[in-house]
Amino acid sequence: MLREIKIVQYGVGPIGAELVKYALKKSGLRFVGAVDIDPSKMGKDLGEVVGTPKIGVTIDNDSKKLLAKTKPDLVVHSTGSYLRDVKLQLLEIMKAGADIVSTCEELSYPFLKNPTIAKELDAAARKNKVTILGTGVNPGFVMDALVLTATGVCQEVRSIRSSRIQDASYRRLPFQKKIGAGLSLEEFRSKVAEGTIKHVGFHESIAMIASGLGWKIDRIEETIEPKIADKAVSSEYLRVEAGRVAGVNQTATGFVGGAPLIVLNLQAYLGCPDPKEWIMIEGKPNVDLTIKGGVHGDLATAAVVINNIPHVLNSRPGLMTMKDLPLPSGWFSELQNFVQRKR
Amino acid sequence: MLREIKIVQYGVGPIGAELVKYALKKSGLRFVGAVDIDPSKMGKDLGEVVGTPKIGVTIDNDSKKLLAKTKPDLVVHSTGSYLRDVKLQLLEIMKAGADIVSTCEELSYPFLKNPTIAKELDAAARKNKVTILGTGVNPGFVMDALVLTATGVCQEVRSIRSSRIQDASYRRLPFQKKIGAGLSLEEFRSKVAEGTIKHVGFHESIAMIASGLGWKIDRIEETIEPKIADKAVSSEYLRVEAGRVAGVNQTATGFVGGAPLIVLNLQAYLGCPDPKEWIMIEGKPNVDLTIKGGVHGDLATAAVVINNIPHVLNSRPGLMTMKDLPLPSGWFSELQNFVQRKR
Repeated sequence: MLREIKIVQYGVGPIGAELVKYALKKSGLRFVGAVDIDPSKMGKDLGEVVGTPKIGVTIDNDSKKLLAKTKPDLVVHSTGSYLRDVKLQLLEIMKAGADIVSTCEELSYPFLKNPTIAKELDAAARKNKVTILGTGVNPGFVMDALVLTATGVCQEVRSIRSSRIQDASYRRLPFQKKIGAGLSLEEFRSKVAEGTIKHVGFHESIAMIASGLGWKIDRIEETIEPKIADKAVSSEYLRVEAGRVAGVNQTATGFVGGAPLIVLNLQAYLGCPDPKEWIMIEGKPNVDLTIKGGVHGDLATAAVVINNIPHVLNSRPGLMTMKDLPLPSGWFSELQNFVQRKR
Repeated sequence: MLREIKIVQYGVGPIGAELVKYALKKSGLRFVGAVDIDPSKMGKDLGEVVGTPKIGVTIDNDSKKLLAKTKPDLVVHSTGSYLRDVKLQLLEIMKAGADIVSTCEELSYPFLKNPTIAKELDAAARKNKVTILGTGVNPGFVMDALVLTATGVCQEVRSIRSSRIQDASYRRLPFQKKIGAGLSLEEFRSKVAEGTIKHVGFHESIAMIASGLGWKIDRIEETIEPKIADKAVSSEYLRVEAGRVAGVNQTATGFVGGAPLIVLNLQAYLGCPDPKEWIMIEGKPNVDLTIKGGVHGDLATAAVVINNIPHVLNSRPGLMTMKDLPLPSGWFSELQNFVQRKR
């Protein structure tokens, strides 16, 4: 029987809090520390900050000292979407000898857009004999890993279309703001121009799909358009009048041999009548897959990240992606039942 | 660059023929031999027997001699559904140093129903440093691997239901006969009693799901009922009058802690109005997944088997199942692009 797996939470924002809450329900792993740079969280109990009873783990802002003191087996990392912002954090964690599961979107498949950083992270992982994985519900699951899995029944794949259509009415206010709900068309365009309305991860999802299939991506084109409310719609937090922006409609197209073979489309807006995940693979045979109602973003990101801990612990060292690891299933008994070997 | 992968087809029945036809389209692997005990196929060209142009590979019935002579890297095995019938074949292949992908249904997850044979096959694989996998569309994909994958977004799973609802009208005549189409109720019951109307693989699918989640199966209950035609239905081959059997409705229920937590239901009949794969996971969140129209059985079995060849070549030695290997995606460029290491 393996001992308990020691983990550290690195980043205790809204997503980090979801990760901690789910991880606290699992048996066989134990928080030994938490890192956040927010001065208002410094010295507070991790449980208290995420909204559960106290767990006796204090949030610290000195990651290096904390890692050296606690010697975690694995760090759950959730501080940013862009590799340039989190690279040094990831390198420091690996140098301390810990595996990493991170929500960093660009880490989910960094080899196309960030090949230099990808190589550097992979080299550091191998050198320190640890595994590093970027994942989440998207990128990481519905628009890449699940798409690839669906091609498993195909003898030919001619094109792939994946749509994620979400009703933002029931999401948190920051999410509703992030998709531009309530803005005028001009405000929306200006936020798109400054880069604040944007799902990060389409490049990575397209690159992962293409790599899994053995396709070579020529280029990726991306458009971000508003969903305009045709009648007034409301959420708990916001009211959007007809003619104003209800949310976002973002599309990324991956070209292979000059043809638009991978098209990913994300719609998230207030008042969406038929939320769903939809994957359409044209091939032999076709696969026309729908998840009715869609997959709940916040719950599912925490699930995908924590559910992959056993696979990361079992993996050979290196920078891994969801397509390299076994099926990303849930696990609901003692973690040690799923861990095949000691590190 | 790795050299071409040498493969042998072992079993050239209807499924074997589908496997060969798909494998012939892939680049980076090459048939070096084929085995079948059918005297009418002996000495014939493998391509000719499966309905393609000749490929210069002759079907032989002496497997031992053929394996010794051709030294394949991997054998595609398709001779039977039951481990007791194919065990000696599998052991012989592994002794010859070849990896195996097999369509044997009981091999897809043998640890619950056939633990002794499972142990023996795993030991032989490790001893000979080869990998052995049983897979196909079902068991192997839609009612187990895909179900487990769908739980990847869940923080809790309370129950799992998976239904495979197929219109048998467009399948081959042997398939239509196998599901009892055209029989009277009495004839159907007697064929069920003698074991000839039965999908093999529910025990294995339930066991794989449970193992993936960390659930312990108490027992599995199985029922096989007819689908009675409420009006006359026809296929290219058969006409079924109202009141006679149009096909089969088979259900297997896996009990966990006394509760029926995993329910798999397979319906295959002439005149089915809404064929589909349907997976319903009750949990946090729910996942309500449908593949409209379903997944074509014969095409998909060949796809799943051949698509898993790179994963088998890359795997550590031993008896593997779909839950142990990476995402079962299609691959559509040179096989060597997907193979990470020499054996």
